[in-house]
Amino acid sequence: MANADYDVLIIGSGPAGLTAGLYCSRAKLKTVIIEKANLGGNIINAEVVENFPGFPQGISGAELSSNMISQVLGYGVELKQSEVTSIGLIGGFKEITATDGQYLAKAVIVAGGGRRKKLGVPGEDEFVGKGISFCAMCDGNRFAGKAVAVIGGGDGGLSEGLYLAKLASKVTIIEIDSKLHASAVLQEKARVNPKVDILSSTTVEEISGDTEVKSIVIKNVETGSKSNLRVSGVLFAIGLEPEVEYLQGMLELDSDGYIVVTRLMETNVPGIFAAGDIRSESVRQAVAAAGDGAVAAVSAENFIRRM
Amino acid sequence: MANADYDVLIIGSGPAGLTAGLYCSRAKLKTVIIEKANLGGNIINAEVVENFPGFPQGISGAELSSNMISQVLGYGVELKQSEVTSIGLIGGFKEITATDGQYLAKAVIVAGGGRRKKLGVPGEDEFVGKGISFCAMCDGNRFAGKAVAVIGGGDGGLSEGLYLAKLASKVTIIEIDSKLHASAVLQEKARVNPKVDILSSTTVEEISGDTEVKSIVIKNVETGSKSNLRVSGVLFAIGLEPEVEYLQGMLELDSDGYIVVTRLMETNVPGIFAAGDIRSESVRQAVAAAGDGAVAAVSAENFIRRM
Repeated sequence: MANADYDVLIIGSGPAGLTAGLYCSRAKLKTVIIEKANLGGNIINAEVVENFPGFPQGISGAELSSNMISQVLGYGVELKQSEVTSIGLIGGFKEITATDGQYLAKAVIVAGGGRRKKLGVPGEDEFVGKGISFCAMCDGNRFAGKAVAVIGGGDGGLSEGLYLAKLASKVTIIEIDSKLHASAVLQEKARVNPKVDILSSTTVEEISGDTEVKSIVIKNVETGSKSNLRVSGVLFAIGLEPEVEYLQGMLELDSDGYIVVTRLMETNVPGIFAAGDIRSESVRQAVAAAGDGAVAAVSAENFIRRM
Repeated sequence: MANADYDVLIIGSGPAGLTAGLYCSRAKLKTVIIEKANLGGNIINAEVVENFPGFPQGISGAELSSNMISQVLGYGVELKQSEVTSIGLIGGFKEITATDGQYLAKAVIVAGGGRRKKLGVPGEDEFVGKGISFCAMCDGNRFAGKAVAVIGGGDGGLSEGLYLAKLASKVTIIEIDSKLHASAVLQEKARVNPKVDILSSTTVEEISGDTEVKSIVIKNVETGSKSNLRVSGVLFAIGLEPEVEYLQGMLELDSDGYIVVTRLMETNVPGIFAAGDIRSESVRQAVAAAGDGAVAAVSAENFIRRM
């Protein structure tokens, strides 16, 4: 066994994984966090996080992550840059295969979050953090008094759009299908809101600007006609894809692919817990993910103590 | 209606209530937090909070609370010192009766935490403020150079005991069960501290003295033998009772009296949510309570948007 003998192996180093690591290490559990991409998770891209309690002036996502990383390192958590490719059960333990070798752990906390779904159009990578947003509650204030497009006409898109309509000068909701998929009450609220326009049968073909988003090219998929829409922001509400491929059917997922958990963050496999954006019914907020991480760690400690 | 017209009324100003207030106010919901005792909740008594993510050097409970309070005030949340005495349903709204008047709100978030449990033994009411304490940081200086008993061997008891050990001549931690329930790191710190004694399988039968506490009667629950312990102070750290009396049976409770919630912090009454230590299966950690508060606020906002 190349890399073995951890009490807890945590997959993912966002707020959920780091808080789980903090709690596990303070409980004197030998803990490793495995991160395949950026240490800190998606929140490191947030220019300013205003809704994490304890920071009245706000804090950059990078600094918040960095603080959390220092905190877990201070308690002896190991951080490894590697990618988990499978999890197996072996003699009461969990055997985790990663790109840097195999790990044997008593408990696993899956906190790998999700990747954003993409449109596959020009500008969608370039303008992330420069007007492209994935969270109205996080970034809404920067669009105060400005025009914003929301891509996605489901409950998420309309909720985000109605939220933004309290701040923005104009909100255009763009849905590829001929009908919105959001619940009737949200559709009605959007229709009567004078700040909200709804464009169905419409796709976004391009996002453009200079240092920030200035406009998008939209296309009516029925007529084929294209036009330019001047916006300062584009909010993506086309969903997150939970990163669960390596679990290969081991854990119960909900209909959207998120891991089903109890309120104690237990999955259907004893000793495997899930926390943060990857679990079912997450509200996808940093402090909620951090709270999940603490809960998962307490549950993992209880599980290990009873082994 | 003396005080009416809030979107969300939050009961309690600990990490759960304050984080709920932060999220509600950032969602442009008119929000009031009602606190009957100390602003900030029980955490203000923590000398240092080391397990709140984002503060690698730790932060005092008072400063963390103060930061959170500044943060919600910055977004326009109203804070009121008052006590809720009942909640009713009236025409689709919630009517909250408090000692300073009546409030009408679209949604309520119950985040009132709990009150300290009692032992039910002679002297425990009589000597409150005369040697009985519920807060090491508040009362520690009066025990300088004296012997103190701490009742409770959980995280709270050991944290309080270790704090007192810096001031007192001797700290005796008394736990009814045969093992302490505190996290391993705290147990280790207590065991190596020469000023700290640990008595497990032990109960307190009586607290006695004259104008102040002079001694307690302790009993070993395995052998039945009683003895007298000379102490000048008794610190209670035996946990919380959820404060739910004013709900008068409106909300479903678990067998321990905590409010049953879904993963979205919904209670059985639409538009009433619960968060933090008061809800069922809480792990009673500040960051988890804060996470609950964010979830409850998102749920309250969704509820109000669909009204």
